[in-house]
Amino acid sequence: MEVFERSFEENIEILQKLLKGNRMTRFRTEYLALHSYDQAKIFLAFEEEYREKVYQYLSPSELANVFDSVETEQHEYMDVYFEEMNNTYAAAVLGDMYADNAVDILNNLSDRERVNIYMHLMKPASAREISQLINYLDDTAGSIMTTEFVSVQEGEDLKSAYQHLKNVASSAETIYYVYVVDDNKRLVGVISLRDLILNEDSKLIRDIMNTRVIAVQVNDDQEEVAKMVMDYNLLALPVVGFDQELLGIITVDDIIDVIQEEADSDYSGLAAVNVNEEHETPFGAAKSRLPWLITLLFLGLGTASLISQYEEVIATASVLSSFVTLITGTAGNAGTQSLAVAVRKLANKSEEDNFFNSLTFELLTGVFTAIIVGATIAVVAGLWKQNFILGFVIGIAMAAAIIVANLAGALIPKLMTRLGFDPAVASGPFISTLSDLTSVLIYFSIASLFLEQLTY
Amino acid sequence: MEVFERSFEENIEILQKLLKGNRMTRFRTEYLALHSYDQAKIFLAFEEEYREKVYQYLSPSELANVFDSVETEQHEYMDVYFEEMNNTYAAAVLGDMYADNAVDILNNLSDRERVNIYMHLMKPASAREISQLINYLDDTAGSIMTTEFVSVQEGEDLKSAYQHLKNVASSAETIYYVYVVDDNKRLVGVISLRDLILNEDSKLIRDIMNTRVIAVQVNDDQEEVAKMVMDYNLLALPVVGFDQELLGIITVDDIIDVIQEEADSDYSGLAAVNVNEEHETPFGAAKSRLPWLITLLFLGLGTASLISQYEEVIATASVLSSFVTLITGTAGNAGTQSLAVAVRKLANKSEEDNFFNSLTFELLTGVFTAIIVGATIAVVAGLWKQNFILGFVIGIAMAAAIIVANLAGALIPKLMTRLGFDPAVASGPFISTLSDLTSVLIYFSIASLFLEQLTY
Repeated sequence: MEVFERSFEENIEILQKLLKGNRMTRFRTEYLALHSYDQAKIFLAFEEEYREKVYQYLSPSELANVFDSVETEQHEYMDVYFEEMNNTYAAAVLGDMYADNAVDILNNLSDRERVNIYMHLMKPASAREISQLINYLDDTAGSIMTTEFVSVQEGEDLKSAYQHLKNVASSAETIYYVYVVDDNKRLVGVISLRDLILNEDSKLIRDIMNTRVIAVQVNDDQEEVAKMVMDYNLLALPVVGFDQELLGIITVDDIIDVIQEEADSDYSGLAAVNVNEEHETPFGAAKSRLPWLITLLFLGLGTASLISQYEEVIATASVLSSFVTLITGTAGNAGTQSLAVAVRKLANKSEEDNFFNSLTFELLTGVFTAIIVGATIAVVAGLWKQNFILGFVIGIAMAAAIIVANLAGALIPKLMTRLGFDPAVASGPFISTLSDLTSVLIYFSIASLFLEQLTY
Repeated sequence: MEVFERSFEENIEILQKLLKGNRMTRFRTEYLALHSYDQAKIFLAFEEEYREKVYQYLSPSELANVFDSVETEQHEYMDVYFEEMNNTYAAAVLGDMYADNAVDILNNLSDRERVNIYMHLMKPASAREISQLINYLDDTAGSIMTTEFVSVQEGEDLKSAYQHLKNVASSAETIYYVYVVDDNKRLVGVISLRDLILNEDSKLIRDIMNTRVIAVQVNDDQEEVAKMVMDYNLLALPVVGFDQELLGIITVDDIIDVIQEEADSDYSGLAAVNVNEEHETPFGAAKSRLPWLITLLFLGLGTASLISQYEEVIATASVLSSFVTLITGTAGNAGTQSLAVAVRKLANKSEEDNFFNSLTFELLTGVFTAIIVGATIAVVAGLWKQNFILGFVIGIAMAAAIIVANLAGALIPKLMTRLGFDPAVASGPFISTLSDLTSVLIYFSIASLFLEQLTY
């Protein structure tokens, strides 16, 4: 339930009418009354002709407020808007945005020359903040932090700290945590606004600050940062450099975006499709799925070619073909389970886990699973086809296929991490297609040994 | 980087030594200096003999603070701790905890009689808050909200609002948003602490409050609540009843838990394994994977039985068997992609999407994918086996199998939602095992029609 009167569609219609009719004052009244998130949604829905008017009707700081509410995933598509503005206006908008958002957009501009132009045209103070952030590696604390935080010196008293807070409150991303630094700008403590309010004005900061500050380093991975915010229920997390100097903060709303991003990435990886992309046409959707499908098709041709080698075996004992998909399918399922668990574990562990311990654990898990499933199918197949050698062959092949698939699902993500890739790229379909190959090899090799007993 | 001196293991060792040696004062000094999240981690690692001492050394409100920092997923296992305490102490701890956490734990107690005992022994005010929350359905706004919020009357001035804030600050979960109600406790506006600070004392609340309050209803689904917090970058979200009366708030840290929970649930569903459970032994891990594996094994036997029907076809044209796993595997991959996209779309849409529009979209996506992949494999198979009838058969069968798998992946989650199940239960392995069946049926039916041309 939202205590707003109109729907999204109604708002767009009304605002577009006002823009078309050059009703600047009325447009500003209506548009600026909305929550900035809704302003952003509406802006993204405007066609170019309407956007041109918006650039004339809104000041740079008003548009900056709208752009600050655009979701992070959309930043890479905002290039086109800045191309539509004159450079001075564009630079002013970027300068008025929160530095972390401006940096994200600038990093995505295709024309690097324009980045320089904007940096020269914007207020020097904004340019300085942006240039501090613009060089950090993607997906590190430095790349998602903002420099708009509040800090005070440890020698100040609460009264002056409070006054300082009021002065900077309108430009800081959050004023609910106040960070305490020493003369060398090193982070030495933190006070919450709650503490500030509840204590007497005359007290000194160093007396009531919390010296056990939870912080991250500027090159820490964003997944670790997210975990820390989640574990400690923080609204913001300070980021320090290599000399413990306070460089920026990461706010909880940005962390929520990181968590969602990582979750989408893991989920997409498991299914070999990017679940974030929304496609206008079925053709576009099909295009996005084809790369993996075609790749796995050719990988699967390897399995087809392998089965080909055993065509005579199959011609001799065609009962074997009934169980091919059962073995490849079940091994694939086991491999997918193992993969999902392994990728999640890799995401959760901060410190280097003992590799051989976890390898042994996965191996044994696979062995137990294999024994139960293998025994089950051995009995069922043997009874069904009235041939216990067949049951035995199916059972052994199934068990071996499951063990191999389990190991693949557990090892390949780890291998990818060591090679520097995101383990979530090792998708479920990749693991199961790979395990099809090994399952078929195991199955027909074993079956060949018992061929006589399997011929009817 | 954490500005703490000792590691987790060192802390546990030291604290256990202090407990063993009955060093109450020293234990309290060391333990209470830690962040409550670390206190919780350490407490969860203590054996029973140590926990018994902790109950004697910490006051109910100190232990309540520790328990409030235990992660939500652990709440169902905390039964055992309360059984170890005497009832009065246990009731006091529950009463001092934030109401939403206490409710979660109480809802998980196996012995309902004890719930009544605790409710009678705790402070009446706490009991009243808890009983308000205890009846809400799982996974709704009501079940994750807390009643410890700050509200003021619209007629008050900022000075008295600020004073009220200072009075309740220590017991409210968050004081950063102050909710404004009318005489009937209906939600009429909100002020952030930032606004409170930046305005003059004498102003009236109703003059500076934001009347466009974003709120949710008490029976709204927690996924919708999470989406709203994410979209509007809120630190807290008010929850109203059916008469717009303010009942509680949901804080962003609880929403992060919900987001993580939903992400884990979707991810687990896609892989047919619960990635959240951590198992002590490989045997335990294997046990948790078996239910789905065995279920899918029997479903797969259906496919095996189907292939059995075609044994003569295979005996006649054994080249067909080479391509079985390629077709089932590729169709399965396409089905998994389709499933992942469908489940994610269902999670994101708040309003009822046009069923036939999205069905047509998915169908067309499948058709385009099927045509490209089918054509590719038709050419490759035809060239490889020097038999273009074979290529044609494989291509048609592949295309048809992909279309069916795509539809299954898109429709089954929707069907499950309409039947009231969580669509994430329709796992990837379930869809691909199902599509194995349809793929095999399609493949061999088509092949039978062209049997002569496929015999060598």
